[in-house]
Amino acid sequence: MSRVTEERAAQIFAATKQWGRWGANDERGALNLLTPERVQRASGLVRDGIAVACGRELAVASAADNPQPALHHMVLGGDVGGTRRTGLQASADFVGVSFHGMAVSHIDALCHVFVAGQMWNGFPASDVTSVGAQRNSIAAGFGGIVGRGVLLDVPRQCGLEWLEPDDAITPADLDAACAAQSVHVDTGDIVLIGTGRDARRAQHGPWDPNRVGLAGLDAECIPWLAERDPSMLGCDGVSDVLPANDHSWALPVHQCLLVGMGVHLLDNLQLGRLAAACAEADRWEFLFVVSPLQIGGGTGSPVNPIAIL
Amino acid sequence: MSRVTEERAAQIFAATKQWGRWGANDERGALNLLTPERVQRASGLVRDGIAVACGRELAVASAADNPQPALHHMVLGGDVGGTRRTGLQASADFVGVSFHGMAVSHIDALCHVFVAGQMWNGFPASDVTSVGAQRNSIAAGFGGIVGRGVLLDVPRQCGLEWLEPDDAITPADLDAACAAQSVHVDTGDIVLIGTGRDARRAQHGPWDPNRVGLAGLDAECIPWLAERDPSMLGCDGVSDVLPANDHSWALPVHQCLLVGMGVHLLDNLQLGRLAAACAEADRWEFLFVVSPLQIGGGTGSPVNPIAIL
Amino acid sequence: MSRVTEERAAQIFAATKQWGRWGANDERGALNLLTPERVQRASGLVRDGIAVACGRELAVASAADNPQPALHHMVLGGDVGGTRRTGLQASADFVGVSFHGMAVSHIDALCHVFVAGQMWNGFPASDVTSVGAQRNSIAAGFGGIVGRGVLLDVPRQCGLEWLEPDDAITPADLDAACAAQSVHVDTGDIVLIGTGRDARRAQHGPWDPNRVGLAGLDAECIPWLAERDPSMLGCDGVSDVLPANDHSWALPVHQCLLVGMGVHLLDNLQLGRLAAACAEADRWEFLFVVSPLQIGGGTGSPVNPIAIL
Amino acid sequence: MSRVTEERAAQIFAATKQWGRWGANDERGALNLLTPERVQRASGLVRDGIAVACGRELAVASAADNPQPALHHMVLGGDVGGTRRTGLQASADFVGVSFHGMAVSHIDALCHVFVAGQMWNGFPASDVTSVGAQRNSIAAGFGGIVGRGVLLDVPRQCGLEWLEPDDAITPADLDAACAAQSVHVDTGDIVLIGTGRDARRAQHGPWDPNRVGLAGLDAECIPWLAERDPSMLGCDGVSDVLPANDHSWALPVHQCLLVGMGVHLLDNLQLGRLAAACAEADRWEFLFVVSPLQIGGGTGSPVNPIAIL
Repeated sequence: MSRVTEERAAQIFAATKQWGRWGANDERGALNLLTPERVQRASGLVRDGIAVACGRELAVASAADNPQPALHHMVLGGDVGGTRRTGLQASADFVGVSFHGMAVSHIDALCHVFVAGQMWNGFPASDVTSVGAQRNSIAAGFGGIVGRGVLLDVPRQCGLEWLEPDDAITPADLDAACAAQSVHVDTGDIVLIGTGRDARRAQHGPWDPNRVGLAGLDAECIPWLAERDPSMLGCDGVSDVLPANDHSWALPVHQCLLVGMGVHLLDNLQLGRLAAACAEADRWEFLFVVSPLQIGGGTGSPVNPIAIL
Repeated sequence: MSRVTEERAAQIFAATKQWGRWGANDERGALNLLTPERVQRASGLVRDGIAVACGRELAVASAADNPQPALHHMVLGGDVGGTRRTGLQASADFVGVSFHGMAVSHIDALCHVFVAGQMWNGFPASDVTSVGAQRNSIAAGFGGIVGRGVLLDVPRQCGLEWLEPDDAITPADLDAACAAQSVHVDTGDIVLIGTGRDARRAQHGPWDPNRVGLAGLDAECIPWLAERDPSMLGCDGVSDVLPANDHSWALPVHQCLLVGMGVHLLDNLQLGRLAAACAEADRWEFLFVVSPLQIGGGTGSPVNPIAIL
Repeated sequence: MSRVTEERAAQIFAATKQWGRWGANDERGALNLLTPERVQRASGLVRDGIAVACGRELAVASAADNPQPALHHMVLGGDVGGTRRTGLQASADFVGVSFHGMAVSHIDALCHVFVAGQMWNGFPASDVTSVGAQRNSIAAGFGGIVGRGVLLDVPRQCGLEWLEPDDAITPADLDAACAAQSVHVDTGDIVLIGTGRDARRAQHGPWDPNRVGLAGLDAECIPWLAERDPSMLGCDGVSDVLPANDHSWALPVHQCLLVGMGVHLLDNLQLGRLAAACAEADRWEFLFVVSPLQIGGGTGSPVNPIAIL
Repeated sequence: MSRVTEERAAQIFAATKQWGRWGANDERGALNLLTPERVQRASGLVRDGIAVACGRELAVASAADNPQPALHHMVLGGDVGGTRRTGLQASADFVGVSFHGMAVSHIDALCHVFVAGQMWNGFPASDVTSVGAQRNSIAAGFGGIVGRGVLLDVPRQCGLEWLEPDDAITPADLDAACAAQSVHVDTGDIVLIGTGRDARRAQHGPWDPNRVGLAGLDAECIPWLAERDPSMLGCDGVSDVLPANDHSWALPVHQCLLVGMGVHLLDNLQLGRLAAACAEADRWEFLFVVSPLQIGGGTGSPVNPIAIL
């Protein structure tokens, strides 16, 4: 497998960068493309009334792809009778999660990654301190992210159940998927890349993506995406093919989309159910809704995005 | 302010209980009403393409209504250069929350409350242990909750900005709101009750709902709701009027809806923005999407529900 | 390697059980042996004024022996100027830990383990609910645990640096260690068993004790200990040899000492430094101080015990 | 109540600063004074064999002096039978805490406070990043802190049970306490200042120290302390009198001791039990043991220090 060179990555970054496109103070980036018109039109894609969740179950057990498992603690269980002033019998719990990484379905805010000390629209990394992000936080998504979703099911068009861990998806693969699915990626679309990761994991068990690899987009897909001008990109992996590059352009898709293009990313989605529903309906477009938790100053949020066909 | 007596609450519970309606093993309750037909029809309510979030910002500071503030910690900030193997410059954070209570927008799973040691459909409280709920967990909502939302803006129809902390909403108030808004609550609807809590909090600052009170539904609204057969109920308060009753029917709306009727609840929503958008559009119905995090064995989830008009 | 049979373990439990020894309501167990006289006498063991810590560094990275790593988050770093009302420049952090397990140095409270639904002194397991232990919590140690500590360095007397993962220490090994070190274990002593675990880990890296094993005491050491009547037992492993037994007496040392004898346990100590200091001083007894955090209702506490020679 | 001026505080800082005293790379500061000789001599202060804990119970409920309560969650309770592979019946819990603040007994590392962007020995604040402190972390205390403790019970010598919230202790008060107790503060001592805070809290309930005040040392006590050359300073408050100054020398004791003198601080101790034991024994000196958790890169640790008389 070839990997992008440092020079080529820098070139792609420069060519696709769109700082200033929505003004010097913009912190929403490509979410600006989700205009009421596009949202209204996307709602017309609901034909069968089938909702499909694209989040994974929160993984509380350590695994090869989950070295920092989420916490789920009961703070009140059925073993306690009426414990409150009022005698109400209740159960309750606590959930805690460092959601970036390889296991949790999450959205990356535009402050998640820096290139040479800068983030989207040129804001400095120093705007992100130990108390949170003053710029480019997930606040851009607090209002909900709604639009036309398009799933490109890459292994399907190759007749496979899944891609192998270090398979790099090329622009030709994306074109082939569009053709096979008779779908067109348009300005403002939320593009989802399926690699069959969940199916492979169900079959073979978890593996360490940093060591073994993880199927994802070759850096040459970045110009392909830039041309189509999506509002958001999601993947059942982390969009970038792994292992990461051994130079300053470690994760070129993360770096070019988050920093250069202002495109939020959805990582570690569970796309198997959606792929099955799309195949069944023979339609690969749908209304897509992402509702980040309103984490002030946050670098993203765990999410459970919903596709509605 | 009058409060329901213990006898009357028990009577209402008995009269509205629908255990077994969807089979003896059912754990989804009224979410069963969200059929593809209803979802599809609800999507037709999107006319303007306006998305409005109904979650509150995660409150990390202690306040009169937030004694157990959420945790938001940076685990990687802009002060760290390339820290990973790959040299990627990034920021990341941790979020932790005991989401039940009076501050966090959340969904209550059907295991959240027990009546006399039982929960929805008759499952015993002992099914909820210190390691999570074996029955009636939030797994019922993992697939996403999508339907027709209807907002009843109670203070508006009284010409008020907000209800006072211990105002109890009556069935007559609900009828009046329906009439004033020319809206009808139907089988399978997601009913949202606005009390103007956010507006009052913005004006007067936070208060302790357990001591001072919180506007909500009188127990006599439960039969009114049962007749209309909603799939879910939400409120900018906690649906129940506070302070809680001083008998075993502490929070009759929680007890009758979660335990007796199998209706999930949304607590502590932020409904001010939605009320304004509805008033502007003069329409009080919309597509409504709730996507709980997939917390296995969880008693609910923090959520940021999205209304789309 | 042989393992205790279910019958023999039950027999040992019955023979060493001392419920009621300090009254029917006692929750302190063998800590009652730490009388002022014994504490005063132990202070006389300080001859060189050398303090040696026996805790491990809190492990925040996942490892074979640490599937649930501790959390350490900065909540304020040097990247934030004067952030408080007062302009004080400061840094601060959060630490969170599920301290039982194989990685964190901790003390087990007498409520940590049950045998047939009972814990120390016959209190029922149901006294330990999702909100904490009503009986036998770590409160017994809130006042500090101070006494004469004795280290038995088992590999040393065999001329080894460490025991192998599933080596089971026998009473003969303990006798040999006592003889080699010219030390006598007495009533009220805090007995520490060194297996060389840290040295082995430093050399070979971490391993999964549940799968690979962990050196510890054979169940036949329990009567040996009971005869000597210690106030507490500690180990650089978990006292019990692993893997655990495949019957109801999974961890007989845990079960017999915590439940039957009322002896608190210290797990996962770091005893390499202490062993070196003892060898250097040629003395294997010292003043020993353990100060659990005052976690109300807790099942134990992370600790960093201090030996003073 | 008078407060130190900005000029006077700066003067005190300059006059008491001892950067370089233990070399340019030193990160232990005054802990260097705890030589084996001093530790050995301190052990001779144990006459009655009475151990007294000086930590407060970990406060998990929000209160006026505890806006960020600690977390204590059961991760396994008595409601779960044999849950592990082995069938062992057990309970376990999680504890999490942001330990700085006004409620938790903790030690401040030398990286906790900066003056003009610098910390102890001149290291820059930028050495403390979102991933922890590279310099002056609590690692200085990993080995345990043992020495001669001296309690100065300030209200006692005034015939009071407690000082009022904004009482500032003067050097004359310290002299008077020494005289009344016939105790002398010497080089290398661990000095504990009792203000009767716990007694007042037990009587009047909690109050907000930032608003109402908290008894503590006037800045003029700093030269008094510097002259006596202690190894550590502790208090049942936060050593500094509150509310904090309204200028860059917000908490002069914190700033001068941590940053200038390299003296670790113990905040929010519970000293009522120790004061009672000292009065009973009519001795105000004792062996004192503090064992911070080994939190790598930490800015301190929750602790439960033990005095042994």
